[in-house]
Amino acid sequence: MAKVEVLFFDVLGTVVDWRGSIATDAQAFLQRHDAAGIDARALADAWIGRYSASSAAVRSGQRPFVPLDQLNLENLHASLDQFGLAPASFPAAELETLNQAWHRLRPWPDSVPGIARLKERYIVAPLSDCNTRLLADMAKHGGLPWDAILGADITGAYKPAPQVYLRACELLGVTPDRAMLVAAHDYDLDAARGCGLHTAYVHRPHAGDPSKAGAAPRPAGWDYAADSLTELVAKLP
Amino acid sequence: MAKVEVLFFDVLGTVVDWRGSIATDAQAFLQRHDAAGIDARALADAWIGRYSASSAAVRSGQRPFVPLDQLNLENLHASLDQFGLAPASFPAAELETLNQAWHRLRPWPDSVPGIARLKERYIVAPLSDCNTRLLADMAKHGGLPWDAILGADITGAYKPAPQVYLRACELLGVTPDRAMLVAAHDYDLDAARGCGLHTAYVHRPHAGDPSKAGAAPRPAGWDYAADSLTELVAKLP
Repeated sequence: MAKVEVLFFDVLGTVVDWRGSIATDAQAFLQRHDAAGIDARALADAWIGRYSASSAAVRSGQRPFVPLDQLNLENLHASLDQFGLAPASFPAAELETLNQAWHRLRPWPDSVPGIARLKERYIVAPLSDCNTRLLADMAKHGGLPWDAILGADITGAYKPAPQVYLRACELLGVTPDRAMLVAAHDYDLDAARGCGLHTAYVHRPHAGDPSKAGAAPRPAGWDYAADSLTELVAKLP
Repeated sequence: MAKVEVLFFDVLGTVVDWRGSIATDAQAFLQRHDAAGIDARALADAWIGRYSASSAAVRSGQRPFVPLDQLNLENLHASLDQFGLAPASFPAAELETLNQAWHRLRPWPDSVPGIARLKERYIVAPLSDCNTRLLADMAKHGGLPWDAILGADITGAYKPAPQVYLRACELLGVTPDRAMLVAAHDYDLDAARGCGLHTAYVHRPHAGDPSKAGAAPRPAGWDYAADSLTELVAKLP
């Protein structure tokens, strides 16, 4: 096994609690706008649940690349509509502030200490569908100690397109066999493995994309598996 | 004046002491290879002095983009030749190790504390001709607390090409009037200003490209000027 120099991390669900964080911000938004009767967690899950289909439209070439910030804003409009709230009834700045919830996603409790320890041995970097500014804000807000940040807007593509993984390896100066993806999602690890990267699965029971129904079985067959990033520290060479 | 959100930093000469750092590594290399009679500082300056012409060949379209690591290795060969040392007489791994001196360039004493303080108010990121892996290694080695790293290999262009500055602004989600370049070199600040960025000049008496003869006059007319990054902290809003 080639010496791994770079650890890439999926972010949404793997490093940060997207569902919980967005629900918190959605609840504050609903309360400010006299709509506290709406279930903030359901609204958050509806919003997050639209992400996969909207990025798939870019992946398939149905529309040109746009950064996640823009997909999120479109999906927020659609989700508000779905809950009977007309987007046009809110000031644009208020919707923009809520959309910025993605820039403030909270790390899981083990993420910052785990990444800080792994940083002593590896170059650590996110490999995410988020755009660069979003990732930079999130890191600043949550104290994520990345060595480098590569947003989807750098490659102009969304996972699991192979060029996302290959371009990230190229920019960090490694062949794929000297890199590893750390992720909570099967499809992501599968694509990384297909590109020649090593794989580490992190079990995040509440990380799943809510648009994909049913409890995902705990996958096997990855190079490493752990229940947290701090647990992963002890398992990696 | 629009609120500046992002501070970009030129790196070579502005943040790190490239001439001093490379001379130190060159001296160790020359001693290991029984060539201590050669002036390490002169060899370092010859090597650095070739950088401008080699990146200009990319800028002019004379050759396709290659990362700085590759230009540096070619320039190292030419510089050794110039001092009567045949590159082929050294093991390739030894030349590669010396070339990696650029990944270990030492920050000026005020750089880490200055950037750390500025990071409390702005997003701080290098905007450099160095490639991403080089910048990530340099940050890790020297403790530079960047919020994001944008290497020249992301844009595939060298300064002062306008797309370098404009693409960096785009990736960090700001219009140029919400960004500022901090640099010790006139041509760089001039190009940034031409793209609509604000400018901060840092006076680094020993930062100049040694290929450009004569003492550069201390320039004026930039939005801010300081003798160090810690001094700049007090001058910026």
